Amino acid sequence: MSKKVRFCVVGYGNMGNGHAYNLYHSKVTGAELYAVCDNDPEKLEKCKEKYSDIKLYSDHYDMLKDENIDAVFVATPHYDHPVIAMDAIKAGKHVLIEKPAGVYTKAVREMNEVAEASDRVFGIMYNQRTKSYYRKVKELVDSGELGEIRRVNWIITNWYRSQSYYDSGGWRATWAGEGGGVLLNQDPHQLDLWQWICGMPTRVRAFCQFGKMHNIEVEDDVTAYVEYPNGATGVFITSTSDTPGTNRLEITGDRGKIVIEDDKITFWRLRISEREFNATFKGGFGDPECWKCDIPPAKKMVEDHVGILINFTDAIINGTELLAPGVEGINGLTISNAMHLSTWIDGWVDLPIDEDLYYEKLQERIKASKFVKKTAKATLDVDGTF
Amino acid sequence: MSKKVRFCVVGYGNMGNGHAYNLYHSKVTGAELYAVCDNDPEKLEKCKEKYSDIKLYSDHYDMLKDENIDAVFVATPHYDHPVIAMDAIKAGKHVLIEKPAGVYTKAVREMNEVAEASDRVFGIMYNQRTKSYYRKVKELVDSGELGEIRRVNWIITNWYRSQSYYDSGGWRATWAGEGGGVLLNQDPHQLDLWQWICGMPTRVRAFCQFGKMHNIEVEDDVTAYVEYPNGATGVFITSTSDTPGTNRLEITGDRGKIVIEDDKITFWRLRISEREFNATFKGGFGDPECWKCDIPPAKKMVEDHVGILINFTDAIINGTELLAPGVEGINGLTISNAMHLSTWIDGWVDLPIDEDLYYEKLQERIKASKFVKKTAKATLDVDGTF
Repeated sequence: MSKKVRFCVVGYGNMGNGHAYNLYHSKVTGAELYAVCDNDPEKLEKCKEKYSDIKLYSDHYDMLKDENIDAVFVATPHYDHPVIAMDAIKAGKHVLIEKPAGVYTKAVREMNEVAEASDRVFGIMYNQRTKSYYRKVKELVDSGELGEIRRVNWIITNWYRSQSYYDSGGWRATWAGEGGGVLLNQDPHQLDLWQWICGMPTRVRAFCQFGKMHNIEVEDDVTAYVEYPNGATGVFITSTSDTPGTNRLEITGDRGKIVIEDDKITFWRLRISEREFNATFKGGFGDPECWKCDIPPAKKMVEDHVGILINFTDAIINGTELLAPGVEGINGLTISNAMHLSTWIDGWVDLPIDEDLYYEKLQERIKASKFVKKTAKATLDVDGTF
Repeated sequence: MSKKVRFCVVGYGNMGNGHAYNLYHSKVTGAELYAVCDNDPEKLEKCKEKYSDIKLYSDHYDMLKDENIDAVFVATPHYDHPVIAMDAIKAGKHVLIEKPAGVYTKAVREMNEVAEASDRVFGIMYNQRTKSYYRKVKELVDSGELGEIRRVNWIITNWYRSQSYYDSGGWRATWAGEGGGVLLNQDPHQLDLWQWICGMPTRVRAFCQFGKMHNIEVEDDVTAYVEYPNGATGVFITSTSDTPGTNRLEITGDRGKIVIEDDKITFWRLRISEREFNATFKGGFGDPECWKCDIPPAKKMVEDHVGILINFTDAIINGTELLAPGVEGINGLTISNAMHLSTWIDGWVDLPIDEDLYYEKLQERIKASKFVKKTAKATLDVDGTF
C-alpha cells in the first residue's frame, strides 16, 4: 500500500476541527484528510473556508459510498459513535472513533461484534494511552514490579468547567445529548487508563450527584468505590466544580506503592514483599524496608491525538498492533454505566452490568428531562488532551 | 490550688506505661504520678520496680476511695473507658480518658451525661489536636479562608501492622476485646480531627473488610463515603496492611484547596471564589486565578501526650479551656460505629446512628466469635503519636 490513507472526519465540531487540522497539515505520516462530513451546513461552510480542496458530505450514508475513502474518523456527539462506526465498517472502511465508545454498552457491544466479524482496523481515540508516564506505570504493573494490586485511588477532579462551558453547546450535559456528564465527557480517558493498568472491577457502588454545582441535569460530581476479583479495592473521585482540582493516581501493591501526580511517577519499592514481611516479622511495630524511587517515563512516542492517528494509520498500512483497539472502549464505558446505575438503584452493581436495565433507566431520564437550555452556538478551542 | 494535681493512671499497658512515665518524670508542670491501678498483678509488679514510691491499686473501686487522688487517667482496654470514667467522675475525680471514648456510642452517651452533670474536668487524649499543622488547618477552615467546604478526602493508610503485632495482646483485634480494628485502635485520632476540622456528616456508606490481610476478626481495611449537611462529600480510606501507607488529607472549598501531607500544609488559594467565577465567566474553558501558598504551621505548643496532659492539668488548676473535651469523644466514635454498621447492614447509615441497633449487631459478633488467638503477652513500645 503505497498511497496515503484517505480519511473522512465525521463531525466537524470541537474535536473534529482539531483532527481535520492534523490530518490536513500532514502531522500524520501516511495519512491525509480527504473529506469531512457534518449534517450542519454552517459547519461545512466553515470547513470549506479552511480546506477548499477536500470533499464535503452532509450525509454519512452518501459519504460511505465514496470508494476513495479508506478510513472514517467518527467525532460526532456520543450517541452516534456506534451507529456511524457500524455503518462504516459494514461499508468496508477502517474506523477510528472518538471517546467514549458510545453512551450505553448495549450499542457498543453490537458495534464490537460488527468490528470483530470484519477485517477492518478499528481504533478508539484513547490518546492518553500514548502518555509516557501511564505507559510506564502499566509496564511496572504488568511486569510484576508492584506485586499484586491491593488498592487503587484515583482523585481526578481537575476537570473544572464553568456554567458558560455547559451553555456553549445544545447537546452538552443532557441525557438526550451526551448521555451523561463528567463520566461521559471528561473521564473516559481515566476510566480507560484505570482498567488498562489495573483491570476491570467485579462490582461498583457509586454516588453520582446530578447538577450539583451547575445548571445541568447530568452528573458533575462522582465518588465511586469498586472491588476487584482478587479482593483489591479502589476509589474514583471526579468532579467539574473543584478548582484547582487534583489528578493523583495511587496504586498500592504487595511490593509497595506507585503515585502519579503532576506527570511524575514515584515508586515506593519494598525490598521484600509485604506478605513475606508479615509472615516472618516477629516484633511489635515494624515495616519492610522501603526505597523511594523516582521512575523515568517510558520511551517517548508521538503523544496525544497525533500519536493515536499515527498508530492507527500504521495499523492500516503495516499491520502494526493498535495501542488503543476500538473494542476496548466498552471497558471504561461499562464502569461509567455501572456508576450511573449504582446511583440510580442506590445499590451495588455487579459487572458485567445488566445492559437492558441500564438502557431502560437511561431512557426514563431522557423522557423525564424537562431541561431547557439556553445555548450559545459556539465551537470551543479544545487544545490539550480531551 | 497550690499543690500538684495527683494522678492515678488506670491500666498499666502499652499506653499507661508512657503516661505514667511522663507524669512521674515531671514532664507535666503542676501534675504528679500518685498511683497506678491495674488488675494484672504482673503489670503492677513491673510498675513497682520502676516507681517504688507510688501507690498501687489492683481494683479501681478501692482506688477511687483514695481522697489523695485528684485526677484519674483511664488507659485501659477500650470497653472500660466509659465504665471507669463514670465511676471516677461520680467519685469526684477529674477524668482524662484514652481514645477511643468507648466502643459503642450508647455507653459513651451515658458517660457524657454523667460528666456534664458534674463540675469535674473531663478530657480525652486526642493528642493529635496539639499538632500545629492540624490546628492551623482548623483555623483556616474556621476563619473562612477556604470558603464553604465541598469535598474532604483523607487517605490514612500509614498504620501498617504485622500479624506479630496483632498476636502481641489477647484483647487486640477482637470484637470482645477491642470492639473493632483499625477504626477503634489506630484511627480515632483521624476520625476526631476530621470532624473537628470539617464537622459531622449526615450519612455514611462504608465498606469495611474484616481480617482481610491479617488473621483477625475485625476490620483491617476500610473505605467510607460520607455526605455533609451542606451537600459536601468525603472519603476516608484506611488500612493496616498497606506499606508504605499514605497520610494525605485534602479539603476542597469554594476558595480553593488545602492538602496536608508529610506534615506540610499547601493551600491553593483562589483569588475570587469558584461560585463567583462560575457566575461571571463567559468563556469556554477557564478557571479562577489560583495561588499556591505554603502555609506556616500554627504557633507551637507542647505537643502530643504531654501537651494534652498539660492542658488538662491547667484546666483543673486554672480553669483553662480544654483543647480536647471528653464529651467530644462521641463524635469520632459515632462515625466509626456508622462505618461498621453500614457494612453490617450493607446500606446507608444516617447520623445520629441507631445506637441500639449498633449495640445489638456488635453483641451478635461477640457471641459468634470463634476466634482463638495465639497470643504473646508483651508490652509494646508505643513511642510516637498513637
